[in-house]
Amino acid sequence: MHIRVINPNTTRAMTDLIGRSARVVAAAGTFVDAVQPTMGPASIESHYEEALAVPGLLEQIALGEAEGVDAYVVACFGDPGVDAARELASGPVIGIAEAAMHAAALVGRRFAVVTTLGRTTARARELVDRYGFRDACVAIRACEVPVLALEDPRARTRLVDECRRAVEQDGADVVVLGCAGMAELCAVIADEIGVPVVDGVAAGTVLAQSLVALGLRPAAAGEYAAPPAKPMAGLLAGFAIRADAPVAVA
Amino acid sequence: MHIRVINPNTTRAMTDLIGRSARVVAAAGTFVDAVQPTMGPASIESHYEEALAVPGLLEQIALGEAEGVDAYVVACFGDPGVDAARELASGPVIGIAEAAMHAAALVGRRFAVVTTLGRTTARARELVDRYGFRDACVAIRACEVPVLALEDPRARTRLVDECRRAVEQDGADVVVLGCAGMAELCAVIADEIGVPVVDGVAAGTVLAQSLVALGLRPAAAGEYAAPPAKPMAGLLAGFAIRADAPVAVA
Amino acid sequence: MHIRVINPNTTRAMTDLIGRSARVVAAAGTFVDAVQPTMGPASIESHYEEALAVPGLLEQIALGEAEGVDAYVVACFGDPGVDAARELASGPVIGIAEAAMHAAALVGRRFAVVTTLGRTTARARELVDRYGFRDACVAIRACEVPVLALEDPRARTRLVDECRRAVEQDGADVVVLGCAGMAELCAVIADEIGVPVVDGVAAGTVLAQSLVALGLRPAAAGEYAAPPAKPMAGLLAGFAIRADAPVAVA
Amino acid sequence: MHIRVINPNTTRAMTDLIGRSARVVAAAGTFVDAVQPTMGPASIESHYEEALAVPGLLEQIALGEAEGVDAYVVACFGDPGVDAARELASGPVIGIAEAAMHAAALVGRRFAVVTTLGRTTARARELVDRYGFRDACVAIRACEVPVLALEDPRARTRLVDECRRAVEQDGADVVVLGCAGMAELCAVIADEIGVPVVDGVAAGTVLAQSLVALGLRPAAAGEYAAPPAKPMAGLLAGFAIRADAPVAVA
Amino acid sequence: MHIRVINPNTTRAMTDLIGRSARVVAAAGTFVDAVQPTMGPASIESHYEEALAVPGLLEQIALGEAEGVDAYVVACFGDPGVDAARELASGPVIGIAEAAMHAAALVGRRFAVVTTLGRTTARARELVDRYGFRDACVAIRACEVPVLALEDPRARTRLVDECRRAVEQDGADVVVLGCAGMAELCAVIADEIGVPVVDGVAAGTVLAQSLVALGLRPAAAGEYAAPPAKPMAGLLAGFAIRADAPVAVA
Amino acid sequence: MHIRVINPNTTRAMTDLIGRSARVVAAAGTFVDAVQPTMGPASIESHYEEALAVPGLLEQIALGEAEGVDAYVVACFGDPGVDAARELASGPVIGIAEAAMHAAALVGRRFAVVTTLGRTTARARELVDRYGFRDACVAIRACEVPVLALEDPRARTRLVDECRRAVEQDGADVVVLGCAGMAELCAVIADEIGVPVVDGVAAGTVLAQSLVALGLRPAAAGEYAAPPAKPMAGLLAGFAIRADAPVAVA
Repeated sequence: MHIRVINPNTTRAMTDLIGRSARVVAAAGTFVDAVQPTMGPASIESHYEEALAVPGLLEQIALGEAEGVDAYVVACFGDPGVDAARELASGPVIGIAEAAMHAAALVGRRFAVVTTLGRTTARARELVDRYGFRDACVAIRACEVPVLALEDPRARTRLVDECRRAVEQDGADVVVLGCAGMAELCAVIADEIGVPVVDGVAAGTVLAQSLVALGLRPAAAGEYAAPPAKPMAGLLAGFAIRADAPVAVA
Repeated sequence: MHIRVINPNTTRAMTDLIGRSARVVAAAGTFVDAVQPTMGPASIESHYEEALAVPGLLEQIALGEAEGVDAYVVACFGDPGVDAARELASGPVIGIAEAAMHAAALVGRRFAVVTTLGRTTARARELVDRYGFRDACVAIRACEVPVLALEDPRARTRLVDECRRAVEQDGADVVVLGCAGMAELCAVIADEIGVPVVDGVAAGTVLAQSLVALGLRPAAAGEYAAPPAKPMAGLLAGFAIRADAPVAVA
Repeated sequence: MHIRVINPNTTRAMTDLIGRSARVVAAAGTFVDAVQPTMGPASIESHYEEALAVPGLLEQIALGEAEGVDAYVVACFGDPGVDAARELASGPVIGIAEAAMHAAALVGRRFAVVTTLGRTTARARELVDRYGFRDACVAIRACEVPVLALEDPRARTRLVDECRRAVEQDGADVVVLGCAGMAELCAVIADEIGVPVVDGVAAGTVLAQSLVALGLRPAAAGEYAAPPAKPMAGLLAGFAIRADAPVAVA
Repeated sequence: MHIRVINPNTTRAMTDLIGRSARVVAAAGTFVDAVQPTMGPASIESHYEEALAVPGLLEQIALGEAEGVDAYVVACFGDPGVDAARELASGPVIGIAEAAMHAAALVGRRFAVVTTLGRTTARARELVDRYGFRDACVAIRACEVPVLALEDPRARTRLVDECRRAVEQDGADVVVLGCAGMAELCAVIADEIGVPVVDGVAAGTVLAQSLVALGLRPAAAGEYAAPPAKPMAGLLAGFAIRADAPVAVA
Repeated sequence: MHIRVINPNTTRAMTDLIGRSARVVAAAGTFVDAVQPTMGPASIESHYEEALAVPGLLEQIALGEAEGVDAYVVACFGDPGVDAARELASGPVIGIAEAAMHAAALVGRRFAVVTTLGRTTARARELVDRYGFRDACVAIRACEVPVLALEDPRARTRLVDECRRAVEQDGADVVVLGCAGMAELCAVIADEIGVPVVDGVAAGTVLAQSLVALGLRPAAAGEYAAPPAKPMAGLLAGFAIRADAPVAVA
Repeated sequence: MHIRVINPNTTRAMTDLIGRSARVVAAAGTFVDAVQPTMGPASIESHYEEALAVPGLLEQIALGEAEGVDAYVVACFGDPGVDAARELASGPVIGIAEAAMHAAALVGRRFAVVTTLGRTTARARELVDRYGFRDACVAIRACEVPVLALEDPRARTRLVDECRRAVEQDGADVVVLGCAGMAELCAVIADEIGVPVVDGVAAGTVLAQSLVALGLRPAAAGEYAAPPAKPMAGLLAGFAIRADAPVAVA
């Protein structure tokens, strides 16, 4: 079984981190690799950057289909482009927000999301609603550390403090980490705050693996059917992606 | 007051139609023009096409900002890129699904959306939820006519039939047309089915005009603040859009 | 286009204030006037007063119909009698709570209502639910200043303080003013708190104007059809209001 | 214990019917009487009529307070004026829609409301939402028989047929009768359709009796506090109702 | 009329307390007794204990049916086994959480539950949702006093303090006591905190009495039909309970 | 990794079937066994039977803890006793309804549950709500075949027909099988109806395996802490189960 984790931003160090996090939890027979787009922003902290990350992400899906990848994990907590990716992929596509929230809901009653910047919490709330976790999610907190600064030790202190507040002030019995860049902090934070902590990259990997084991993939007809063939103008003309005519990447 | 209606697809005939529909309802002192992106799909009927339409839409917002446009209407019923556009624009940005649903809720109790293809109804439902109209929206129906075939007289018959079913079977007391390409059919359908019918292009125009008259625009800080300056790799490198450094369009 | 704003209480100074606020935002070709009932309470701060204000409000609608008014704004934040008014009017009728909440939802994600007395917040919450803004409305706050005392400078300080708390403590990115008597404070408060502030009188005026421009009015059959002809006993015997037999006002 | 059932319309035959229905279920030590207003419509089938019925209803509450009534049942399925009545009354006030829905929810999982005219269903739905029975209520059906025509045997057949559809098509396991005028049909319909049937007049009587037995009444401060003293202009000038200054009825 | 209150735990002093509380509010013609199971835990403060209390509770229902009891009140705030009991009983079965919440909703707008241990609040929240009171219930608070320690005067102080916080911090206008063991504290607490306080044992008794007076019982077919005859293995072999073959209790 | 699937009824053939279904999807390094209680009903089709199945289920959890089992799957679609089991187990406990709904939500937008008897659909709906899938679940259908009759070929035809109606009439894009006894029919039905079909036994197995791989287990404090030590009277006296004093099974 081949699972591909796609980092939708163009920062190599994050792609490497994500790959490590995913491989740690995969079962013996599962091959996991991690890739990133050839175009797009260095990190995703606004609706604008999310929008510009998606074309490059879709290109990676098209490439993965040509290689026979079995399932994809989209490793950004805004779950960018996941619906579009499902139209291109023949197997499951899971976002890490989706995966982390499902895992959290299976292990506790009231999870909190702790994310990077406050400006991204509206998107997180939208995903909470879409996935059905409005009752389960008791808080969405931001530690106000940018994605690419999470390595800084002081940043980690702020993140742990915010996670602790989620437990003590909001009554969370599980914490969901709201950024792929937090993946390797999961165990440390769990030790410090005394409740389970979920990283979406790891959760996405085992859930994608589960769906493949169950033989589940979206219905061939309906919402996630391959997009109709259609002219594509200008800069994006190369993106004539269809299931039966895989994209020619420039 | 200058309101710009952006057709997010690259089909000129639709841009023209949209412009006409918008101008009909604008007040005396309001200047309205209609534009389309330089890149992207000919029509939007899938998540994939929506994703690829957004970069070109954002380019138009950046151009509009340089020209001093007061407000924007995004004229595709999936409201693509509206959140990202709000981060670039200094005035209001309204999607036509958003506009049509608000107008419908102000005039009746139970509206139905009648759209083009069944595969797009999941996106419409998502928008109904986001905008708060879960109780107000009694049905989302598809007439299974593609966007670019709406001109065909037989297509119109199917559309009218579906609107009539929304009234008679679902108990709708208002009908929302689920595609910018239906804009000029609004009055005809209302006559045939006996309940008010809302076209989002017209609704978006008068609501954008209303917000400008009220002096309302998103808060300068928070979710819709200008995106942070950041490297953008590859094909999209030209998209270094920021409020203080307007995009240089190739 | 003739829009009539009805102050449902019997205090002339508020009627004048409301008229000024409405005229400021109306488009060039729109004529706006403001009226008040011949009977009813001096202000509305309880369910009881709201109930006694409605007959006089309906009388004004009946008079307006005889004069050919195109649309009505009901200028009390409890939106009293709006459904009943729709049964009498041939054009749109909008309440100012309804209007302000729709406008707020179009410009931000999370609005707060700041109103006069705490005892009225249950009604405000009921309206939030009815209009679909349960998710969008993050708080309903009261400054505990009675309607007729809003002119007092100390009252204004309390109002501004409460608006600021809505932003800082509740995370509101838009503030809705919860009383017609606050209409002229809108711009001042917005300057002080740094987020958009919505006054329902102005919002109701431009939204009513929008619906007329779109040609939208409730369906002639159904919930808002003219009430059936029927005996009316006692003091209210004069209220034999029907679309085809306009009320004879004593 | 003295419970007063108020018929908010001015049709004597309905007041008598309502009184009989209430007395049948009251406990041994409970005195029940039924009254009607001195002014207002002959029946309530529109928002307009509901609005004009409320002042007369409030007058009856004020009279009841002077007589020491312990609790009130408002016997119209729109629950008109119940919140306003609570501001005047020192004991519980219950609407028959409220009462019937609570009783239905205590005995089954999925109730349907079967009411008179389709135009009133929007109000019924609003009450379902307010009382928290959105999940419990599976349908609101209308038999299209006016309130004052319910005595007609053919009308009864249509009512029974609609109740049966609620069970067979909507899966209701309890039926709520949506009009005080249906009170004496309750047992007959239950026999015919094989599921429990709830009449709000009877339900309101026993629930009001229950609240008195429990010593429960709304908090003296807050939403249901006595309305503030205030000038009341015009025709309604006699309505200076306050807890400490009972209304002088003309 | 014979109403039986069942204490689902095996502590005699609580059974006696519950019986007293129920008898105080019953009407003149209503006979009330209180019983407890022959097996199960001394008190119920976990899901595990609730699960082990239910078989003994069902045995009491079967015994009651043989004696012709008219209705049952299940006197533990988790409402354990209520659905199963309804399958065995020919009359109404009401849980005290259910009863207290319905009564609270009839007398105020925003109730708070104040219960014993924090670990039980998730179950209380589940019941709030099931009964439709998600909007009405503004808080669920725990005083962290175990059920069997409620008699301690210091425990009562903590309980009263928590009730006061529900009013002052959460804005509750009614308080629901979250444990049968608090039944006799109801009036004292109401005096101290100034809002109505509801005890579920008393509420359950008068509501059961109401349903019997209305002649309401679950439909004979459907969810609450008698369970099908079926082999029962091991320790529970004696539990071959069916409506037509009452359980033989060892 | 050791995962134990517990069939909560006492029918050996179903335990064997469940074991086979679980083992098929487990990863290479995962050991899966299936057990059943020593007491309780032959199948679970009522609230009463569910209540009597739980003590035997909890006994199996206690035994599993003594053996060092890593995670449990509760293989009945009512998810009986899952919360209680979590208080006893040190690792994850998953119900098959929970597991199937999560898997369905990860692969489609709108799932339908197709179960055995109509009388069990209220419980299924309750679980849909608890797990957050109210929006995702478009229908709960019953084929009216008892659990122990599912082997009959005519029964299978009825089941397939009902699944097809879920797709064609309700618009489901995934079907969830509502009984552990349907586990081996999953692939066949998927082939016939053309959308993915989810069996909860398989889904529960891979999700339990996922949670163990992620190192997630409920917080040691809080709702799922071990129950307090406490006297247990009568027949169930042997059930003194606590984490630090494992149950002595007769």
